[in-house]
Amino acid sequence: MLPRRPAVVYENPSLEEAVKAVRVATSGHKALVVVGSCWVEYQGRASSKLELGERILIMKEDGSVLVHRPKGYEPVNWQPPGSVFYTSSRKGILTIKAVRKKPNESIAAHFNHVYLVSVLSLVDKGEFSLYASEEDMQKAILLHPSIVEGGLKLITYEKKVKPGFIDVYGVDDKGRMVIIEIKRKTAGKEAALQLAKYVDSVKNMVNREVRGILVAPQLAKGVQKLLVTLGLDFRQLDPRKCAEIIRETETKKLEDFFL
Amino acid sequence: MLPRRPAVVYENPSLEEAVKAVRVATSGHKALVVVGSCWVEYQGRASSKLELGERILIMKEDGSVLVHRPKGYEPVNWQPPGSVFYTSSRKGILTIKAVRKKPNESIAAHFNHVYLVSVLSLVDKGEFSLYASEEDMQKAILLHPSIVEGGLKLITYEKKVKPGFIDVYGVDDKGRMVIIEIKRKTAGKEAALQLAKYVDSVKNMVNREVRGILVAPQLAKGVQKLLVTLGLDFRQLDPRKCAEIIRETETKKLEDFFL
Repeated sequence: MLPRRPAVVYENPSLEEAVKAVRVATSGHKALVVVGSCWVEYQGRASSKLELGERILIMKEDGSVLVHRPKGYEPVNWQPPGSVFYTSSRKGILTIKAVRKKPNESIAAHFNHVYLVSVLSLVDKGEFSLYASEEDMQKAILLHPSIVEGGLKLITYEKKVKPGFIDVYGVDDKGRMVIIEIKRKTAGKEAALQLAKYVDSVKNMVNREVRGILVAPQLAKGVQKLLVTLGLDFRQLDPRKCAEIIRETETKKLEDFFL
Repeated sequence: MLPRRPAVVYENPSLEEAVKAVRVATSGHKALVVVGSCWVEYQGRASSKLELGERILIMKEDGSVLVHRPKGYEPVNWQPPGSVFYTSSRKGILTIKAVRKKPNESIAAHFNHVYLVSVLSLVDKGEFSLYASEEDMQKAILLHPSIVEGGLKLITYEKKVKPGFIDVYGVDDKGRMVIIEIKRKTAGKEAALQLAKYVDSVKNMVNREVRGILVAPQLAKGVQKLLVTLGLDFRQLDPRKCAEIIRETETKKLEDFFL
């Protein structure tokens, strides 16, 4: 048996070698890294052109594709899993095309110089685990109330009421007061009953309709029924997404879109 | 003069060679691709752990860093530009750490096997240009009205009124009717005057307050003043962002967050 070769490397390959290596990778559903000088065309709902320059192209075994420039954390062009790859050469140019249906789109990278091709057979069964706190969820909700409900306006947070502290509160698009209780893990009956207490307590203080929304990644058995009985709502929210929202906002990406 | 070497490749390097290559890259502000078996820890607002597996690490000259698994178009861990890199080796493990301030966060990748290190000196001055249509902008606004204004509810689009077709219309969070006129390029006086006509036309039809919002990547000189005179609003929106919103929604990413 031949020893396993996780990375087969071709340095400054000829055009023929490069085409062969890319085909080995795509037909064997391996990952591929190509470094070289290329121009890139994208056709989809929108269309884009990237002029000639030196870049890193990554193709993955599931049909994902990414084009990275020497700067920036975001790829300049990319397609999610499901792309089918086509490789061809003509007049000294290596063309790698990634074609996707639904939506119909394609990326074509045309290389006039290839510095490196690496065919990768990677094994990765490692588990990814992320920890985000209830405070993170609260912050994400305050940054983007629409993750709980469209039209929601939040006033402040951690309001002290008789039975304790309310996580977040605000007003919905119909002018009703909204009390939000956040749990970072599966929410049980106690969470529902606690929220009901808060809602009752606030009802005695204000002269308007008051709603309660329980926000958690999921509900324990029987809690949905209890919420209905108590007249409360549930909104599924993953703490991991909240952490991502905060990070993206801090890196000014989502801010441009949603503030 | 030595010939330029855009990619210097080390296949199956020893631990010492790998450390040296990584240091050459980070001290010389070059890009770097490392393929190997690693576990990854992230500490920031949230924290994450990725167990041992074979991955692609990309570090860029501006301090961006990405860890890619063999599947999926999104990196499992990443940091935007501005990270400072530290490299060390101990007991057969190569550790590459990327540390960032504001927000304070760090990624540490610990490699027990390195299959490939490539130090990249890439030159990329190519321009990126993207074309998105007014239809794309309209679709993005309908998908996510909050990119125009928080609390906005859109009713339908392309309503025929006396002077022509209204791009998008809806109701704002105060119950006022909103007419939206979209331009994919710099909006001139004609766009403002056209919108004013639509608003007037609708005012004659409905028994409520009517607002007009001109949406465009930018305004031509003097148009801001004209909008104020006409009692109309402006919302800056880049067609490129709209195209990205549509794509991300179609790949189910934003959908989970914002619908």
